[in-house]
Amino acid sequence: MTEKVFTFDIHARDGAARRGTLSTAHGDIRTPAFMPVGTAGTVKGLTPEMVRETGADILLGNTYHLMLRPGSERVRRLGGLHKFMNWERPILTDSGGFQVMSLNELRKIDENGVVFKSHIDGKRFDLTPERSMQIQNDLDATITMAFDECTPYPADHKMAADSMRRSMRWAKRSRDAWEPRPGYGLFGIVQGSTYEDLRHESIDALTDIGFEGYAVGGLAVGEGQEEMFRTLEFTTPNMPQEKPRYLMGVGKPSDLVGGVMRGIDMFDCVLPTRSGRNAQAFTRLGTVNIRNARHQDDPRPLDEHCRCPACRTYSRAYLHHLFRAKEILGAVLLSAHNLTYFQDLMAGMRDAIENGAMADFALDFHAAQERGDIDPL
Amino acid sequence: MTEKVFTFDIHARDGAARRGTLSTAHGDIRTPAFMPVGTAGTVKGLTPEMVRETGADILLGNTYHLMLRPGSERVRRLGGLHKFMNWERPILTDSGGFQVMSLNELRKIDENGVVFKSHIDGKRFDLTPERSMQIQNDLDATITMAFDECTPYPADHKMAADSMRRSMRWAKRSRDAWEPRPGYGLFGIVQGSTYEDLRHESIDALTDIGFEGYAVGGLAVGEGQEEMFRTLEFTTPNMPQEKPRYLMGVGKPSDLVGGVMRGIDMFDCVLPTRSGRNAQAFTRLGTVNIRNARHQDDPRPLDEHCRCPACRTYSRAYLHHLFRAKEILGAVLLSAHNLTYFQDLMAGMRDAIENGAMADFALDFHAAQERGDIDPL
Ligand SMILES: [Zn+2]
Ligand SMILES: [Zn+2]
Repeated sequence: MTEKVFTFDIHARDGAARRGTLSTAHGDIRTPAFMPVGTAGTVKGLTPEMVRETGADILLGNTYHLMLRPGSERVRRLGGLHKFMNWERPILTDSGGFQVMSLNELRKIDENGVVFKSHIDGKRFDLTPERSMQIQNDLDATITMAFDECTPYPADHKMAADSMRRSMRWAKRSRDAWEPRPGYGLFGIVQGSTYEDLRHESIDALTDIGFEGYAVGGLAVGEGQEEMFRTLEFTTPNMPQEKPRYLMGVGKPSDLVGGVMRGIDMFDCVLPTRSGRNAQAFTRLGTVNIRNARHQDDPRPLDEHCRCPACRTYSRAYLHHLFRAKEILGAVLLSAHNLTYFQDLMAGMRDAIENGAMADFALDFHAAQERGDIDPL
Repeated sequence: MTEKVFTFDIHARDGAARRGTLSTAHGDIRTPAFMPVGTAGTVKGLTPEMVRETGADILLGNTYHLMLRPGSERVRRLGGLHKFMNWERPILTDSGGFQVMSLNELRKIDENGVVFKSHIDGKRFDLTPERSMQIQNDLDATITMAFDECTPYPADHKMAADSMRRSMRWAKRSRDAWEPRPGYGLFGIVQGSTYEDLRHESIDALTDIGFEGYAVGGLAVGEGQEEMFRTLEFTTPNMPQEKPRYLMGVGKPSDLVGGVMRGIDMFDCVLPTRSGRNAQAFTRLGTVNIRNARHQDDPRPLDEHCRCPACRTYSRAYLHHLFRAKEILGAVLLSAHNLTYFQDLMAGMRDAIENGAMADFALDFHAAQERGDIDPL
């Protein structure tokens, strides 16, 4: 095998949207890309083969969960996260910061980093930029995320500035601590809440350090889609053109379409799998709650145009029955469907960008979403 | 498609053990056969493709569960259970009797049948031989089971005789009510607890009526393996030689080996899937509780000789992690492993019978089981 280098090639543009390929030590990622979340070393309910069949090129793993259980040193001894969970393709790990900061009662934060107690057994842990780099290295993450603070929303200008500037100092410490390996990359994270001057300052700080990619953090934290899009509009144009851009923790299908049109290349979200476990399906015609009684005698598939295992072979009546009977297979099939829908949405946008048709794609997308589900029989 | 007939061919014998093929409207079943249980229209946690990959030729469906939810008329409207659950191969349904009788508080039994209340919503249902035949017809069961009473254990001779004789009257009513269809069959159920005279009387009553197959009921209800084997030894020799014999609700791997050596052709049990959900694996070297801490750093597969997805691709450490983290995939993978082990055990016995080597097979089986799991690293 030839030694891989970490490269990002942009093949086509349509407005602010970009169609590219991110090449890594573990294979290529077609962008715009959606990354399913494999929190604890598994995309909940699905085998890696099923995840791959949905069309995913890359998974996200959660540093916080994996450091607590099974432990990053253990994963390293077992050959890294790819081997551990049987996913040989690229993996991006978050820095652990976002989830640690959400612990509230259980954590203490200062310039050095965060001290927190495990939600599992109360055991004390430190998380610093250096420790986060070590853990993500143990996990063998293809893409490592710099350790940062996800500024809470709302934050006043001073709070947002202080938080962002500390994240920028941590970004430098992350860069210094990260071990370069061919085909691997480290992404910096732009913070600054919804303030244009702070976002620009953050981008300048990060580009001075230099990263293989740049994420937009601190969004999808309660500000709403309109404010998120407004923030993207003054953020992405200032980000490096030649590097991948990743919008963290986003989102709903309409967030993905709007994000791509504002120059985002990568997304991740638990929504498709979490909703799948809760009987909510995303389709071309909006969301469907399969537990609703209207489906109990419906012999039609969830979406007749969908290529997923749930839609190819099963009726709405059967999927409805599985959720009513609390059968595991319901969660499995609906998670597979939702991930397939998200991946096909990304594939549709990739095609549209190549064909200079992204604006039409977005119009069709919104019209179909507003149309709503097929009529009951 | 040519019209299928329901036939049973015995290709080889070794002692009391038989190697056969049961041909049905929905395909062939290699015997001795183990039937995974798909209680509510799904083998818990697995897609039908995964179940088929374990080597299963036939599934069992539970009339009691399916009549309550989604309802047998609904399944009929949706094209039958095969289509509903996407399993085009043979399906055997039980009569509902066993589960209804286990309701205790919620049921009333008389000569006509059973009146009971649903454990789901308290709704009142009748179950009679005629109604059971109708429900199993609605479900489109390839093999229908006669409606009977599973005599509780222990039962004195009079109780066992009274119960068995009512089951024989119900067997006649089942035969009369069952609708003949090419390639479909109805099985009678031998009762009589652990009494030789009653088992013989029951066999005589059933063979006078005439069935496409004969089951041994009322075992695996607390009498223990020794007593079960003793009962089989005076039961199976009197059962028709040319018809398939099905030991209901059995069992552990050693029960299957002992059952085959006593002339049984078919088995069903929830053990592989239920144990799989509870972190217990069946292997050639006995049972393994994968939740045990000894596995947490073990890079070896559960069973290096097993062809299942869990053993082909994952370490014990990973399976251990999945159960510790309460991840669905743990139940999925261990259920697939256990079913694969059960199917491979049956395949091994089928080969052994063909080669006149069943006694050696049983010796090797017991020696390996007693050897126990591989040593910790
Ligand atoms: Zn689908
Ligand atoms: Zn296995």
